Amino acid sequence: MNIQDVFAEYKQLTETRMKELLPSTEVYPGVIHDAMAYSLFAGGKRFRPTLCLAGCEAVGGKNEDCLDAACALECIHTYSLIHDDLPGMDDDDYRRGKLTNHKVYGVGMAILAGDALLTVAFELLAKMANGQNEKQLLQVIQEIAAASGTLGMIGGQVVDIKSENTEPTEELLKYIHTHKTGALITASVRVGGILGGATAEELQQLTIYGEKLGLAFQITDDILDVVGDEAKLGKPVGSDEKNHKATYPALFGLEQSRIMAKQAVDDAINAIDCFGEKAIKLKLLAQYLISRDV
Amino acid sequence: MNIQDVFAEYKQLTETRMKELLPSTEVYPGVIHDAMAYSLFAGGKRFRPTLCLAGCEAVGGKNEDCLDAACALECIHTYSLIHDDLPGMDDDDYRRGKLTNHKVYGVGMAILAGDALLTVAFELLAKMANGQNEKQLLQVIQEIAAASGTLGMIGGQVVDIKSENTEPTEELLKYIHTHKTGALITASVRVGGILGGATAEELQQLTIYGEKLGLAFQITDDILDVVGDEAKLGKPVGSDEKNHKATYPALFGLEQSRIMAKQAVDDAINAIDCFGEKAIKLKLLAQYLISRDV
Repeated sequence: MNIQDVFAEYKQLTETRMKELLPSTEVYPGVIHDAMAYSLFAGGKRFRPTLCLAGCEAVGGKNEDCLDAACALECIHTYSLIHDDLPGMDDDDYRRGKLTNHKVYGVGMAILAGDALLTVAFELLAKMANGQNEKQLLQVIQEIAAASGTLGMIGGQVVDIKSENTEPTEELLKYIHTHKTGALITASVRVGGILGGATAEELQQLTIYGEKLGLAFQITDDILDVVGDEAKLGKPVGSDEKNHKATYPALFGLEQSRIMAKQAVDDAINAIDCFGEKAIKLKLLAQYLISRDV
Repeated sequence: MNIQDVFAEYKQLTETRMKELLPSTEVYPGVIHDAMAYSLFAGGKRFRPTLCLAGCEAVGGKNEDCLDAACALECIHTYSLIHDDLPGMDDDDYRRGKLTNHKVYGVGMAILAGDALLTVAFELLAKMANGQNEKQLLQVIQEIAAASGTLGMIGGQVVDIKSENTEPTEELLKYIHTHKTGALITASVRVGGILGGATAEELQQLTIYGEKLGLAFQITDDILDVVGDEAKLGKPVGSDEKNHKATYPALFGLEQSRIMAKQAVDDAINAIDCFGEKAIKLKLLAQYLISRDV
């Protein structure tokens, strides 16, 4: 098994299911469903759904236990990208090499497309009631909302916006990253675990894995912004630096950042040692982060 | 009992509880909690929470059965106002006589404040799990998400934006109003009913009441826009006309609109006749709509 197969398998599973779950562009009013699909199917790696599905497998769960939740997580991630790209926020014209949502559909429709993806995420989760333990499902809804809210992802974006053009400190950098991207990444693997029937101890190990993975993800993303080539990332290289954003390379230098990323990946892999072979996909995922040309 | 007492009672109940449930402005990052509170406590009538609480009472439920859901509905309503006011949407500077959220906090923060209110609404709902039947709660989450999504409130706003400066038709007007405001109003009274333990038949009657009330609400709102005075409404009189929006008076004339509003209120009141005295507040609410200087 290699990581590209894992990504390919889960990507297909997630995208097929998202197409089943979301209103087609034929459904009135078509333009909003079109705008949602434009960003939802813009070629993402489905990192959060993959984490969710692999987390579920690690505790002995089946894909169908958490697949709709995996789709919901991707909807929330996509909404956050659409809104982050808006004028008044990061004001970006391109994302993954394609025009951003508001450049195609206009600002008003892009705001609504983001709102709609966030809203439908909770609808999908609540609809899982037919197959799932209701207590678990309510816990999942609560965790995803908390991870996406002002003490999670939104909080990270708020501080990121507010701290532009100020001197980046380690404390600020850590706050932004653990909240802006880390919270939903950790929630993704936890949600897979919860819906797969994890024990409290197992969930604790998945949480450590998620936190360390989120850290590694952000450090390597920052490194890629410095050294990566534009085609690979789909955004202008050095754009973080241009905006005076706090990044790991800016604070610690490239070499130290690479060491920190490697340490975080090792910690993540150690945390899931207890699951043995069932966690092979989680392990490959962690290893992948430091293999992507950083 | 008169309607002002009903509003005052439920408003206090809702506002006290919202202050308990939402992060205070002391909680980091304070600016986002401040921005949320600015619009959430901007002096609204708490119409949706009132409907929810009165609907619950009509079926013999207690306030505490649905109070947190009532707060969640107000959060969703408030998020929709913040986003509707943004540039790229209606681009309004004032709301209820106060500067709109983005005029005070900036566009980026206003987008995030709306996102955060939508997100926290679902967190509040999921957290009700401790006191409430879980099946009911998941149904409530699903209904609120559906009423707020692209086949509900967002769909209405999409069509509203897209149809500006086009000739208004009756069909378009009805679509916009039943979706943009009607869906969440109907959901509010239904949610109160569900959490109060309504039977299927009772819920059906509450649904008719909600739909008719939503219709009356919109017609009278349109009438007020023509005849009301600016101070009462908190927005410039005639602003709908200025934007060439489809309204009842524009399509049917003032007199016919008044007759239609009265008919909708009568229909709403007839639908809840079965609840007897327990529905007195719902009845007063319906009567109130056509008493507000229309």
